[in-house]
Amino acid sequence: MSLMGDAYPRTDEDRADAGGTAEAAGPAGVPDAAAVHARLRESAPMVQCVTNAVVTNFTANVLLATGAAPVMADVPGEAGECARLASALLINLGTPSGEQREAMREAAQAARAAGTPWVLDPVGVGSLSLRSAFARELLTFGPAVIRGNASEVLALAGAGRGGRGVDSTDDVEGTGDAAMALSGATGAVVAVSGPVDLITDGARVVRVPGGSPLLTRVTGGGCALGAVVAAAVAAARGLASPDSSLAGAVAAHALYAVSSERAALAADGPGTFAVRFLDEIARVEPAALRGRARAGETGAQ
Amino acid sequence: MSLMGDAYPRTDEDRADAGGTAEAAGPAGVPDAAAVHARLRESAPMVQCVTNAVVTNFTANVLLATGAAPVMADVPGEAGECARLASALLINLGTPSGEQREAMREAAQAARAAGTPWVLDPVGVGSLSLRSAFARELLTFGPAVIRGNASEVLALAGAGRGGRGVDSTDDVEGTGDAAMALSGATGAVVAVSGPVDLITDGARVVRVPGGSPLLTRVTGGGCALGAVVAAAVAAARGLASPDSSLAGAVAAHALYAVSSERAALAADGPGTFAVRFLDEIARVEPAALRGRARAGETGAQ
Amino acid sequence: MSLMGDAYPRTDEDRADAGGTAEAAGPAGVPDAAAVHARLRESAPMVQCVTNAVVTNFTANVLLATGAAPVMADVPGEAGECARLASALLINLGTPSGEQREAMREAAQAARAAGTPWVLDPVGVGSLSLRSAFARELLTFGPAVIRGNASEVLALAGAGRGGRGVDSTDDVEGTGDAAMALSGATGAVVAVSGPVDLITDGARVVRVPGGSPLLTRVTGGGCALGAVVAAAVAAARGLASPDSSLAGAVAAHALYAVSSERAALAADGPGTFAVRFLDEIARVEPAALRGRARAGETGAQ
Repeated sequence: MSLMGDAYPRTDEDRADAGGTAEAAGPAGVPDAAAVHARLRESAPMVQCVTNAVVTNFTANVLLATGAAPVMADVPGEAGECARLASALLINLGTPSGEQREAMREAAQAARAAGTPWVLDPVGVGSLSLRSAFARELLTFGPAVIRGNASEVLALAGAGRGGRGVDSTDDVEGTGDAAMALSGATGAVVAVSGPVDLITDGARVVRVPGGSPLLTRVTGGGCALGAVVAAAVAAARGLASPDSSLAGAVAAHALYAVSSERAALAADGPGTFAVRFLDEIARVEPAALRGRARAGETGAQ
Repeated sequence: MSLMGDAYPRTDEDRADAGGTAEAAGPAGVPDAAAVHARLRESAPMVQCVTNAVVTNFTANVLLATGAAPVMADVPGEAGECARLASALLINLGTPSGEQREAMREAAQAARAAGTPWVLDPVGVGSLSLRSAFARELLTFGPAVIRGNASEVLALAGAGRGGRGVDSTDDVEGTGDAAMALSGATGAVVAVSGPVDLITDGARVVRVPGGSPLLTRVTGGGCALGAVVAAAVAAARGLASPDSSLAGAVAAHALYAVSSERAALAADGPGTFAVRFLDEIARVEPAALRGRARAGETGAQ
Repeated sequence: MSLMGDAYPRTDEDRADAGGTAEAAGPAGVPDAAAVHARLRESAPMVQCVTNAVVTNFTANVLLATGAAPVMADVPGEAGECARLASALLINLGTPSGEQREAMREAAQAARAAGTPWVLDPVGVGSLSLRSAFARELLTFGPAVIRGNASEVLALAGAGRGGRGVDSTDDVEGTGDAAMALSGATGAVVAVSGPVDLITDGARVVRVPGGSPLLTRVTGGGCALGAVVAAAVAAARGLASPDSSLAGAVAAHALYAVSSERAALAADGPGTFAVRFLDEIARVEPAALRGRARAGETGAQ
């Protein structure tokens, strides 16, 4: 039978993407999530994940459900080779073993050299010392997107103490200035997850409301979102979008919000929700993402 | 959308627990599992897991379903820092890599110093040499609870050869003396899983019958139970229970037994069972745990 | 409650298998998958897996669903000890960390010395340099079966460039000569997954058609198949089959094809499919595997 859990690169040509002519921008300056999503399905970008041991399986399954092709190569001596061939890369700091930190450095460096866009998910930064210092080191390799929760973004921006339980709307909104400052300092798009997600490229702010609260009861919900952001940034690049990092981040958050709401309708709890979430990601039509994101100022909703 | 797969500590205050006045003791000297369960839901204790690669995802999802907040920090340089902030700690020996063993030492030492209760799950001890020696080393750090199957408990107690397939009722009952001796020697509550679970603090013996046999067809069933024991011990401490380790262990086993029986009713096999099990853990009402555990002598049922 | 996620060896006797008298050969020279499957259920062979971090959980659950007893011991100092006691061993190169490579060497060496049959799954070989060289080193330890996709088998045989997306029927059929050559050079049975699976012992070619395409949307689908091959080879040995490696590989592929087709009938997408797949593996009756495999020449279907 056909089997393809992991998609390994064959040659550079596999990665080449002819690009498209569609403009990935919707009305009112908000990137067109539907166009990016459609492109993601068509192009099946190869997304390398160097991520934590808890969520590798769920992350790969979420990527497969979106239509992307996950490669979970996270070993020194391979991670850089893979990052040169991949369409996008996720680095997630959830369980940063010594060998994995080495692979992360190697992959981030290779990604920068090869022009592979990469996403940093600074899990737990601000709470635990080792990874907090390591995250700052990784920032020097120029991530395209930084995706985290409010406390992690505040900690990376040097404005918070990091940590747990700061996922309320007010807290996300309270990170607007820090997120814009972090974006300005790093050149990365910064995405903050919460009841209303906040995404900024340092100039514009886009908000994505909604999504099921059951996502907070499934481990890896946030971690897999980072991988989907990477996939969507690769897709947005294929559209020759002038703001592919912002467009990709917005599309990924919209896809997550819509799919999780639909999954919740058929769920009896966190177990059935996680299963249905994969089904819904796989079948949501791109048009359903249209209109979910909206432009706005920091502090205003 | 709101996302919180991992809950990282912010400060010591996050961990502080004002405690309660309810007495976690039911009729006939058996700890009140319902009170502990209710407290677990309310207090959302942060539970650090240094556990094996096979079950990290399922363990985190089971903890989230109970209402606890899992943190899977298992890297040297972070594991001790995290153990000082966590409400409870699980150490599971399923796949003890060199780096993880170092993290386990660090976490257990920090837990002892900080007064964080911790649970040892001696997976495979008695069968494989390396982990058998390592488990004995970890015992010096004073676990609050040791949770395993009959052969593992016999091996740790020095009375068996360890190993596979000794999960029948007779075997569990046959470990009663060894479990009490191990408890006496270590000061830990010892919990032995089987068709009827046996839990002892060296003086009292509590039994928890039932639970679905489908748990034997899902990997991580036992490993995740160890994490729930840790969460429940943290909750029992919050109730200022004088026997929080026993009360927590009993409540965790009762929660598992009731939830797995309910999940089995809606299952067509091990796949649907595991999914439904998470749903049932999330929605079982504390009162359903009442009366499940019963006091008894070793050897008598 | 009874719990047995992991089955650890107690003594050599646990492993001993009295063997059977049934002949594991069906009509027309195709091994009898039904007999092997029935034997697998009865004998519950202990299968050690040294496999990648992404799929450990799914692999263990698939093995449990078949009736086998998974042990995921992958740490140096234990891996060899375990391989001497196990009934079969899987080595999968998906995420080959330094410590895991050491454990793989140790396990393969011990398996060869003890006569434990082992399966090599060369994930990503031909795409990434480190694992490609390492796979060739492992071949010297004499795997009983090599299971991969077309590109991986071509790469190992020295005839391809390896990589992604070569899972069409034509490609599998195009690997027939390379698979037979690889089998001849290594003495291993070689199994190539695709819309029609191709399995050869260097002399005979057996094909297994069918299986659900949803398997390509679930991570670990192929990796877990490698573990089932190991379990089935152990079962075929118990039948004293003269061609236990071929018989085991064929039975495993037939079990996968039938179970995945049934699971697809009840699935709404990749999430529900993966869950139902475990249910179907657990309940499929051996007779359903009969007639699925068919003998044939390379190049002919």
